Amino acid sequence: MEDRRYVITLSCPDRTGVVARISGFLADAGAWITEAGYHSDADAKVFCTRQVIDAASVPYGVEELRERFGEVAVELGGTYRISDTGRRKRVVLLVTRESHCLHDLLGRVWADELPVEVTKVIGNHDVLEPLVTAHGLPFHHVPFPGPRDEAREQGKVAAFQQVRELVDADDPDAIVLARFMQVLPAHLCEAWAGRAINIHHSFLPSFAGARPYHQAHTRGVKLIGATCHYATADLDAGPIIEQDVIRVDHGDTAADMVRRGRDIERLVLARGLRWHLEDRILVQGNRTVVFR
Amino acid sequence: MEDRRYVITLSCPDRTGVVARISGFLADAGAWITEAGYHSDADAKVFCTRQVIDAASVPYGVEELRERFGEVAVELGGTYRISDTGRRKRVVLLVTRESHCLHDLLGRVWADELPVEVTKVIGNHDVLEPLVTAHGLPFHHVPFPGPRDEAREQGKVAAFQQVRELVDADDPDAIVLARFMQVLPAHLCEAWAGRAINIHHSFLPSFAGARPYHQAHTRGVKLIGATCHYATADLDAGPIIEQDVIRVDHGDTAADMVRRGRDIERLVLARGLRWHLEDRILVQGNRTVVFR
Amino acid sequence: MEDRRYVITLSCPDRTGVVARISGFLADAGAWITEAGYHSDADAKVFCTRQVIDAASVPYGVEELRERFGEVAVELGGTYRISDTGRRKRVVLLVTRESHCLHDLLGRVWADELPVEVTKVIGNHDVLEPLVTAHGLPFHHVPFPGPRDEAREQGKVAAFQQVRELVDADDPDAIVLARFMQVLPAHLCEAWAGRAINIHHSFLPSFAGARPYHQAHTRGVKLIGATCHYATADLDAGPIIEQDVIRVDHGDTAADMVRRGRDIERLVLARGLRWHLEDRILVQGNRTVVFR
Amino acid sequence: MEDRRYVITLSCPDRTGVVARISGFLADAGAWITEAGYHSDADAKVFCTRQVIDAASVPYGVEELRERFGEVAVELGGTYRISDTGRRKRVVLLVTRESHCLHDLLGRVWADELPVEVTKVIGNHDVLEPLVTAHGLPFHHVPFPGPRDEAREQGKVAAFQQVRELVDADDPDAIVLARFMQVLPAHLCEAWAGRAINIHHSFLPSFAGARPYHQAHTRGVKLIGATCHYATADLDAGPIIEQDVIRVDHGDTAADMVRRGRDIERLVLARGLRWHLEDRILVQGNRTVVFR
Repeated sequence: MEDRRYVITLSCPDRTGVVARISGFLADAGAWITEAGYHSDADAKVFCTRQVIDAASVPYGVEELRERFGEVAVELGGTYRISDTGRRKRVVLLVTRESHCLHDLLGRVWADELPVEVTKVIGNHDVLEPLVTAHGLPFHHVPFPGPRDEAREQGKVAAFQQVRELVDADDPDAIVLARFMQVLPAHLCEAWAGRAINIHHSFLPSFAGARPYHQAHTRGVKLIGATCHYATADLDAGPIIEQDVIRVDHGDTAADMVRRGRDIERLVLARGLRWHLEDRILVQGNRTVVFR
Repeated sequence: MEDRRYVITLSCPDRTGVVARISGFLADAGAWITEAGYHSDADAKVFCTRQVIDAASVPYGVEELRERFGEVAVELGGTYRISDTGRRKRVVLLVTRESHCLHDLLGRVWADELPVEVTKVIGNHDVLEPLVTAHGLPFHHVPFPGPRDEAREQGKVAAFQQVRELVDADDPDAIVLARFMQVLPAHLCEAWAGRAINIHHSFLPSFAGARPYHQAHTRGVKLIGATCHYATADLDAGPIIEQDVIRVDHGDTAADMVRRGRDIERLVLARGLRWHLEDRILVQGNRTVVFR
Repeated sequence: MEDRRYVITLSCPDRTGVVARISGFLADAGAWITEAGYHSDADAKVFCTRQVIDAASVPYGVEELRERFGEVAVELGGTYRISDTGRRKRVVLLVTRESHCLHDLLGRVWADELPVEVTKVIGNHDVLEPLVTAHGLPFHHVPFPGPRDEAREQGKVAAFQQVRELVDADDPDAIVLARFMQVLPAHLCEAWAGRAINIHHSFLPSFAGARPYHQAHTRGVKLIGATCHYATADLDAGPIIEQDVIRVDHGDTAADMVRRGRDIERLVLARGLRWHLEDRILVQGNRTVVFR
Repeated sequence: MEDRRYVITLSCPDRTGVVARISGFLADAGAWITEAGYHSDADAKVFCTRQVIDAASVPYGVEELRERFGEVAVELGGTYRISDTGRRKRVVLLVTRESHCLHDLLGRVWADELPVEVTKVIGNHDVLEPLVTAHGLPFHHVPFPGPRDEAREQGKVAAFQQVRELVDADDPDAIVLARFMQVLPAHLCEAWAGRAINIHHSFLPSFAGARPYHQAHTRGVKLIGATCHYATADLDAGPIIEQDVIRVDHGDTAADMVRRGRDIERLVLARGLRWHLEDRILVQGNRTVVFR
């Protein structure tokens, strides 16, 4: 088992002495820094940092650390967050029919490779229910109206309301759209800003929208990819967390690309989610700083 | 030195017995096949092949092979080409100010890694002239009108006419736009169809057009790339030959991306050009079959 | 569902007319070739091919095809195999404590991405039993003697005998050592030659043997990898099927490498197993020809 | 042109307050930190950092900075170095017959992508002289005795003595073995410790020694690579700076691997050299910390 850590992230206007102020505070507290990342954005004149502290080295608790460090953050004109690895993070998964991302994440949780509690899985179809219950986790089926349903818009609004209630009841640290094939309404993107993580099955900004592998096949690209990003009201345009690609060639049909692309989707989502849960990501406008 | 080879490429409607017909012909000729690639496109019902033959195994010359195999191709309703590695291929390079692709290709030619004759280099600026003449190759400076020139369009037409004459005088097997920063007019794309090879400094179709690295930086992508493609009248939309990417992160400025991207541009262009010169590429609509 | 295919693989001494003989035979049978790969090894003078045939295009059954094609193979002095995708292949998995490869494969089978029947999973520990039974598959626990057991060698012999009986009872097309941490005895390597597939957690031949990630950390390499290979009596030295790597840096501890390496092990094993099951691999001495 | 920077690197025993001490010193000096990297090695209890300072923000010169920061370093029990980007670094290149690494580096210097002065190139053969003189650089031919020369050992000693004098006369920041096919004697490894950079044409520790691509071909690996490392008396075993790989398959002969591997050698050496010149590398035992 890992030792308990406090993870501090801060962003503030850049100026001389910022690092000295932060590290001076930590030194005074006797804090042992086990990991530290710094980034100065020269264009935006913004400074970002992530500091990992051995909890045992600090003579007071996380609440007092938040309070005391909060004063430093105010002084620096910044925003900060302090996370305690002693509290297990909570995750809700949203799915449709594709099993690969769900199955991959459940395996990582089972092996304790991803140290989270999956509080529930919500599906707009129920085909993945057996996978979820086999892991002893609750599955909630929230049916969505089909494309030819009367009162389709109304039905969607009601379904999303139900999803929202199920999600918000757990106050999760991450809401993962693990190949959830419904577009989140703007009010949910806003309510879950910085917590809703989507995996898109293309190397964005190429092939946004529907059937990206078929678009990729038609265009004849030589690499296909996947993109993990924060969900925003502007579909497929949120801050990118992670991307990766694999090589394809003329022998790959669109169906081959769909199959082979799953391997990249799995990995890219798992990496992105891990970094999010470890507080490695700071969003700056539409870009992310990822302290790896 | 490599042994002399004949390289046959053919595409035709797919049907039972195509391979038997071709390989039967080659067996009758006593041809020793050293390399062979086959591809059936199930959607388009098109068959493509590339066969490499030991020239010494065929009892007649390349002209007679062309004639005889031509009859097979007619019978199969296909189009074919037979290339003789005993004839050194000719290449013309078009450049502007960026030296990296030019320098890389010249190095490969110098080391005989790329077995071609560069008959000339044409630049719309003259800054790269010393690099070219240091390799003992002819450099032609064809100045283009600037953005604020009067009679700009007229000047461009004249400049491109001069470029065309310089190129066509050598009847090259490849015209390489090695970071040539002028858009080829449609009539040149047509005249040089299947021979004009461009390197675009992004992972197309992302970031077509100008300043792709700056676009990539703004969008916050985690990989940047380059694309080698045949030049067509529809800018940055021609059949893709090769692509590759490298990882970037939040610490990379747009200028870093420009610098780091050069390494990918070099490689992707060199690979694409090699495959073109080795007759490994068959264009099918807007896609390429690359027999590697 | 995919259409039924016959997959022919053949290797024989290379000579003029081999392709003509094979394709002539197929054309006479009216066989529609949907996929074909050819390879001539110039050093060994060996020719290898893989041909995929639409079963519906052949006027007789697979047994007759085997008989008829067998005559061609004899004539060419080669060895061949014909596989029928209409018969679902059988796989037995051997595991120890690490869940990631097992879980990954089970997910692919569940989603029918890997079209096989896992007939049983055998573990020398029982910690993975719940994962297996959750998928409705039989798990067999065959305990092995510990390092300090008296009569250790004897116990191992008995345990391996039990494993062998469990495996051979199913006559599987592949025996997958999915992070099975026991060295197969020579007689099993021989009995299962060309069917036993191992995943080694390093980029072989670097770091053969125990604790490869710790070896990699000590040596300070910048990439770590995994290798999928056929098991042979010479440990970690069998014909390599597939390898891949990921980047690590000074910030990665040996434990990080263990965790991050799992993602490569999963993928490399899944790819290698798929190619094996699709009859894409021909072993030539200690090297593999992989028709992708 | 880039602004002038001071680059501080320091390693010292890790303890609470190290960052505070350093950043406090820099804040007091009014230093504007443009880039910063930190690394704590938990096993060795060693702290490493690299800080890039805007030279214009410091009220005194680099000599005074060295003196003042030296006191901090002594206090922390560490070793440090401060580099001034206002002074152009000097590089000597050692070559044999292979042109690709040499040519690549010369191109980067020509384009000012690598901001160094190549003071001379030394070759134990003279075939590369034209490439060097074409770039207006001095080439020194130091012939080495052949394998069948009498008095071979003696001749080698004399030749290396001449190389040493030529190198040391320039007091270079880096001595690059750009495919220099002679083993450096131990006294030179020692004299040039931390400055002599070698490119080995395999993914070390696989295939150390001679003809690595032929070894790789025989073993049937699916990826080949290159390794940039500091030269040490223990051949091919020095601290690794950078590595990379490319995919090969059964169709690649050993000669193909030699050719294709050059692209990786070029890139890996160019990256490693850049990081060295930018003071991004700290050697810790036989491992490197690379602040990218």
